[in-house]
Amino acid sequence: MQASLQQELARIVGKDRVLASPEDLLCYSYDGTFVAYKPDVVVKPASTEQVARVLELACREGIPVHPRGAGTGLSGGSVPRGGGIALVMTAMNTIYEINPEDMLAVAGPGVITAELHRAVEERGLFYPPDPGSAEFCTLGGNVAECAGGPRALKYGVTRDYILGLEVVLADGRVVHPGGRTVKNVTGYDLCRLFTGSEGTLGVITKITLRLIPKPQAVKTILAAFKDLVQTGEAVNAILSAGIIPRTLEIMDSVSIAIVEQFSPCGLPREAAAVLLIETDGDREQAQREAERVVKVLKEVGSAEIRLAADAREAGELWRARRAVSPAITRIKPTKIAEDATVPRSQVPAMIRRLGQIREKYQIDLVIFGHAGDGNLHPNIACDCRDAGEMQRVEKAIAEIFQAALELGGTLSGEHGIGLLKAPFLMAELGEAGYQAMRDIKRSLDPKNILNPHKIFSG
Amino acid sequence: MQASLQQELARIVGKDRVLASPEDLLCYSYDGTFVAYKPDVVVKPASTEQVARVLELACREGIPVHPRGAGTGLSGGSVPRGGGIALVMTAMNTIYEINPEDMLAVAGPGVITAELHRAVEERGLFYPPDPGSAEFCTLGGNVAECAGGPRALKYGVTRDYILGLEVVLADGRVVHPGGRTVKNVTGYDLCRLFTGSEGTLGVITKITLRLIPKPQAVKTILAAFKDLVQTGEAVNAILSAGIIPRTLEIMDSVSIAIVEQFSPCGLPREAAAVLLIETDGDREQAQREAERVVKVLKEVGSAEIRLAADAREAGELWRARRAVSPAITRIKPTKIAEDATVPRSQVPAMIRRLGQIREKYQIDLVIFGHAGDGNLHPNIACDCRDAGEMQRVEKAIAEIFQAALELGGTLSGEHGIGLLKAPFLMAELGEAGYQAMRDIKRSLDPKNILNPHKIFSG
Repeated sequence: MQASLQQELARIVGKDRVLASPEDLLCYSYDGTFVAYKPDVVVKPASTEQVARVLELACREGIPVHPRGAGTGLSGGSVPRGGGIALVMTAMNTIYEINPEDMLAVAGPGVITAELHRAVEERGLFYPPDPGSAEFCTLGGNVAECAGGPRALKYGVTRDYILGLEVVLADGRVVHPGGRTVKNVTGYDLCRLFTGSEGTLGVITKITLRLIPKPQAVKTILAAFKDLVQTGEAVNAILSAGIIPRTLEIMDSVSIAIVEQFSPCGLPREAAAVLLIETDGDREQAQREAERVVKVLKEVGSAEIRLAADAREAGELWRARRAVSPAITRIKPTKIAEDATVPRSQVPAMIRRLGQIREKYQIDLVIFGHAGDGNLHPNIACDCRDAGEMQRVEKAIAEIFQAALELGGTLSGEHGIGLLKAPFLMAELGEAGYQAMRDIKRSLDPKNILNPHKIFSG
Repeated sequence: MQASLQQELARIVGKDRVLASPEDLLCYSYDGTFVAYKPDVVVKPASTEQVARVLELACREGIPVHPRGAGTGLSGGSVPRGGGIALVMTAMNTIYEINPEDMLAVAGPGVITAELHRAVEERGLFYPPDPGSAEFCTLGGNVAECAGGPRALKYGVTRDYILGLEVVLADGRVVHPGGRTVKNVTGYDLCRLFTGSEGTLGVITKITLRLIPKPQAVKTILAAFKDLVQTGEAVNAILSAGIIPRTLEIMDSVSIAIVEQFSPCGLPREAAAVLLIETDGDREQAQREAERVVKVLKEVGSAEIRLAADAREAGELWRARRAVSPAITRIKPTKIAEDATVPRSQVPAMIRRLGQIREKYQIDLVIFGHAGDGNLHPNIACDCRDAGEMQRVEKAIAEIFQAALELGGTLSGEHGIGLLKAPFLMAELGEAGYQAMRDIKRSLDPKNILNPHKIFSG
């Protein structure tokens, strides 16, 4: 990048907000995946005005801009392939407002998700989306990827909580889709078009979030099953009983084995799968629904059922679920987290297909995730320096996507398309659907400066 | 329209699906508002393939196409201004699937909303969106307008229940955004871009809807208040207590007066406003929340509280709310239903502003609607043949919109922009927001054949 451009950027955001040392470029070259591309320069704007002026400049000069939060993404959505500017939004981390009357919060894109959780919960309010990286990831990234998490089963995903946005368009103009009301049908739903657009249509600079009352109580249940068919039956039986648990998580036998190997939690080692289930609401409702879940689990024939008596016991049960990801990294250095999602009735079929793929390609495949909404997380432990293994992994991933689509599902439930799934997009959308998205991209970013190479391959 | 084009349309959809008699053109010239424009021809396709071929033809020849369901819209969104084809989707009225396992339904755009309600409720499932016209309006229209209704407070609006769509684009290509899973972040959220796009971006030909378990029980409460401040306090006190009622409807003193005049329901005539509140859930939850609501209402000082003992008594309470709209039409022949929406804390302020507007322009303004989500329905009874009155009404409406925007609200909560609010769009969106929407429109419908003049004025 020309020195003059770097100077112009420094004039916009201030000198210490422009980084270009080799170490800085390295630090902002990767995300939560194994792909990495170095930017030419790192810019950390402190205001909407600064973002607008950076984009004006980038648009004029045709410089790619890769917006980025904490870089916890799992699809390569923020790595600066093609160089240009890594636009790091973490400095815009103010919670501007928590409004209990209108039940909303207004926050900058750099606010850490869990910090918002805590801030609103102190006021008796609740922001449900809870991606696994909640302690590190930012709200801007959550919106850009339409993050989900375990609680989505009952409460929905990020898109369901966006009331309004402030977004800087590719040429630096600022738009304010949505507002402060749940009902808003004034023109096209740009709030949701930007949500999940992975930084390819605009840079999110302010977020107005809908909040709900904080559920008073949560009950946690762990249930083990002797086979997968029974596990699927249990999921359907719970939901068919009219109960929507707050979470309904699954861990397969491999997950159980590695957790018990690396961080023993007392999981039943002989089980084909365990479900981790939470009910919530006021005290009576959480308790009553938990009892009904236990009854259903018994009827289905669950091999073992544990109902946590208190928060400490619940924490113990969750420790096992949380230990899965760290345990995977103990198997091999590279962890590939997929999120192919199927209609919930197809979860047992998908798990079977994943088992076949594991055998066929001889890969270390661990299956866990959100069974209640069909959003599984097949994780592959591998070593990205082992070319032979990576070839097998690549074929396995393509087959995972194919299986998801064949079962009526989708490539991505909550991680986004980014770089890694872009080659598969056409298979799901078809030519016309793909083209419609490209047309929209072109209409808002005709010079293709915003996060190029993402979503659309090439 | 040339006879040859009409013949070509008849070849696509069959002769009896093309109507062009003066009576037919008149029948499809209006919607639920007072505006009317005749189409050149009415076409009633029976399949996606037919819709695609009609649009191909229309695109080739540059003929405007105005998609339409039952014509119950309240913003002039389906009236065929500029002539061309009225594309009536009511024949595509098949419920293809109700799937209790995946908790979804697949339906054609012509299915009547209340028929879907009944069909899914028979299976123990629930489709919450309930626009006032549910017994007549179609799902396609609901999606095109992103319909809401009273239950949106707890359960959200149409957009929150769209899993997947089949949409025919302006040039006849067919796209299938979304799918059968709640979590789906594969590319841009076209499901929600088409939802609420008012037929200007594509024609909806199939809808996959998310369902939830049907709440077992509903409790209904009516509460009267001596002033509006107290009414607003009651709304906030209920929600602050952590209760999200299923509905939280308001009727002002004028609503009460006209209902009691034309269809007496025993409403307290001296009240400044009444709230109609429903709680739901399993039997215990509905009852317990109703009791908590009653307690809160007493604390706020409600002048009169009635808790319906059974479904019959609940029906009586709802009869008053349902009588408002018919009662308005008894005042004067033209009924203009607005849906300017404000943050819920601003409901009392909005009602005060509406009262001032009523005085200033000496109009018959009735206020009722969804207090819980700030979505009021100021209705004006007038006579569209009285030019002097209509001038005052027009000015009053402009001032209603201005008031909503000044209070942090939006032009439209659930009726859409259509023809009638198009002149006000720029005031809410600003130049850049307006332009972004036009750019998207142009990218998907470059010839502007789909529902021209709607949303964007001119």
